[in-house]
Amino acid sequence: MLGDPEMISFAGGNPAAEGYPLEDIIRLSDKVLREKGAKIAQYGSTDGLQEFRESALQYLIKPRGVEAAVENTLTLTGSSQGFDLMARVLLDPGDTVLCDGATFVGALQAYHMAEANVVGVEMDDDGVIPEDLEEKIVRCRPKFFYTIPTFQNPTGKTIPAARRQKIAELAAKYDMFVLEDDPYCDLRFRGETVPPIKTFDRADKVVLFNSFSKILIPGLRLGVAVGPEELLKRMSLAKQAAIAFSNTLGEAIADAYLREGLLPAQIARISPIYGRRCDRLAAGVDRFFPKGTKYVMPDGGMFLWAELPGDPQNYDLTELRMKALKEIKVGFIDGNEMSAIPGKFRNCIRLNFTREPFERIDEGLERLGAFLKIHTGVSQ
Amino acid sequence: MLGDPEMISFAGGNPAAEGYPLEDIIRLSDKVLREKGAKIAQYGSTDGLQEFRESALQYLIKPRGVEAAVENTLTLTGSSQGFDLMARVLLDPGDTVLCDGATFVGALQAYHMAEANVVGVEMDDDGVIPEDLEEKIVRCRPKFFYTIPTFQNPTGKTIPAARRQKIAELAAKYDMFVLEDDPYCDLRFRGETVPPIKTFDRADKVVLFNSFSKILIPGLRLGVAVGPEELLKRMSLAKQAAIAFSNTLGEAIADAYLREGLLPAQIARISPIYGRRCDRLAAGVDRFFPKGTKYVMPDGGMFLWAELPGDPQNYDLTELRMKALKEIKVGFIDGNEMSAIPGKFRNCIRLNFTREPFERIDEGLERLGAFLKIHTGVSQ
Repeated sequence: MLGDPEMISFAGGNPAAEGYPLEDIIRLSDKVLREKGAKIAQYGSTDGLQEFRESALQYLIKPRGVEAAVENTLTLTGSSQGFDLMARVLLDPGDTVLCDGATFVGALQAYHMAEANVVGVEMDDDGVIPEDLEEKIVRCRPKFFYTIPTFQNPTGKTIPAARRQKIAELAAKYDMFVLEDDPYCDLRFRGETVPPIKTFDRADKVVLFNSFSKILIPGLRLGVAVGPEELLKRMSLAKQAAIAFSNTLGEAIADAYLREGLLPAQIARISPIYGRRCDRLAAGVDRFFPKGTKYVMPDGGMFLWAELPGDPQNYDLTELRMKALKEIKVGFIDGNEMSAIPGKFRNCIRLNFTREPFERIDEGLERLGAFLKIHTGVSQ
Repeated sequence: MLGDPEMISFAGGNPAAEGYPLEDIIRLSDKVLREKGAKIAQYGSTDGLQEFRESALQYLIKPRGVEAAVENTLTLTGSSQGFDLMARVLLDPGDTVLCDGATFVGALQAYHMAEANVVGVEMDDDGVIPEDLEEKIVRCRPKFFYTIPTFQNPTGKTIPAARRQKIAELAAKYDMFVLEDDPYCDLRFRGETVPPIKTFDRADKVVLFNSFSKILIPGLRLGVAVGPEELLKRMSLAKQAAIAFSNTLGEAIADAYLREGLLPAQIARISPIYGRRCDRLAAGVDRFFPKGTKYVMPDGGMFLWAELPGDPQNYDLTELRMKALKEIKVGFIDGNEMSAIPGKFRNCIRLNFTREPFERIDEGLERLGAFLKIHTGVSQ
């Protein structure tokens, strides 16, 4: 349906197509194939291309205050692979995973595939609430806690530094791994940088995932895990059995991209675009959505999370979502799909603000607002 | 250790580096990024890039006599991913997988990761013996039978057409899936082409894997599965949870490569090189290895399987393998590692003939032959 030019999509997590540094990628693909084609062509290492892991550390991880060695890194075929590897290494059927109350559906899929018991932690405007996290750690004895701390998917919320420190302390206190999934952190368009949970990780219990899908291109299928060496070794063994190794051309392109120092300019180029679109989208929600709709204004990332007014149980947005696609040609993600707390987010809508340009944001929200007023009975 | 220039390796399954069509890949990478960069950059489909699946069918699968539609295909991040997906979809812990008596260690790894019970089928000079296969189907009630029918890894053997038909009939008779892993079939340097088991598959029970690792480059991480639509749909769901999608740049390069008709010339270029190296290696085994060493002369592929004389129980090649690496700087794979029949292949050595040039083949076998005569007590 995305092929239909009338379709306006707030659904996916796609970067803006005009933000892709395609000319750089074309040039670097040619360069790395000419300079080290034989190495790129050949069977690679499961852990990843050595120079890519080094440059990811130097240009991506260390600038964020995380101290780590190459032995603490593992190349991932996208962060998606990391969810799967963590699940394989740590989860037996019936084991519990804690996660943000509303969270990334792709990660939920990997945990459900492992037949895990997924329990959502309550969130406020600052993300997961440490007191509820601790209560659920004690009660559920989880194998790990999965969280997206910055510009969270789907809520757009960011966990402040003090709360991050608390999460690291809980991981140490209860000897529990934390999977810190941070693909959006560089897409900040206002406010101050917050250090990763990993920087507070005295007990070596935190695994940090960074992705190249949002800051370079998704098509490379490339991410990197930074964490406890022994855990990453086990994940590497599982990766070997699963795909042998990641595509080396993608690693070499990303490596060259980082070493040429192109990332800061790319981030400086796309973040303000996303910021303006975020503001435009928020203004449209204010104008067209039912009165009483609430959201936390994101400081970065790709998503705004709108909570429609009234009792969540009065909504069935899963049904309305399909109806909206057909009848008004507007796409969104409903809260049920991202929910790890049953019934909690029936009145919530995730709106992506990176894909569509201004006029289509306005047009789409006008259509969607009118549609919601008709079909949810919230007429104002 | 492969970095040591003195090291002569008959161990890996690496294509000859000089066989890589690097100039074509550089040119096509540039071409596809310029022509459809936005599509390649973006999130892709789990099933794979439509045009790649179509060209794989047209240029790779249909010419081998296999009738299939795009719905019967699934892009794989290398065949390795296929083993893993089959295991995830079909195997519960304790389930049985049948396979060739000696087989690919990467597939064994995936089945063991799924906690399956792996049972090897006896082989003669024509590969697996259908009578033993049927006996084991009846006795073990396997979830599927995994076989490499052409220039088998590690034995170099090829299953003749009549026996392939028999395997397809057994699959139908016992309602059992067959995983036909055929990455070497195009690397034929003598003899007549044999049709895939899939061409005899009246009951839609056979899944055929083809890989681009041996005919293009391993670094793209690209393979394709052709088989029953319903099974591939389940594998696609498992793939979605595991890595979301394969790297689209690799698919686009392979697609363009196939559509430009470059594959036949590439195969015609590398196969004779492999054939001459195979003959050279066989001559070296005749000359330097202990008297009574036997092998089946391969008609293609990458491997020759040498059986040393005498009782297999008198050998411990796993220990000798490490010793040979250190003391004479020659690498090989011992039979134990590839074995699905405990103790059966203790006297067997897999020798790769694609990696090393003539003079290093001679030198390596001279060293290895002398070493084996000393350490196995077979002094002739």
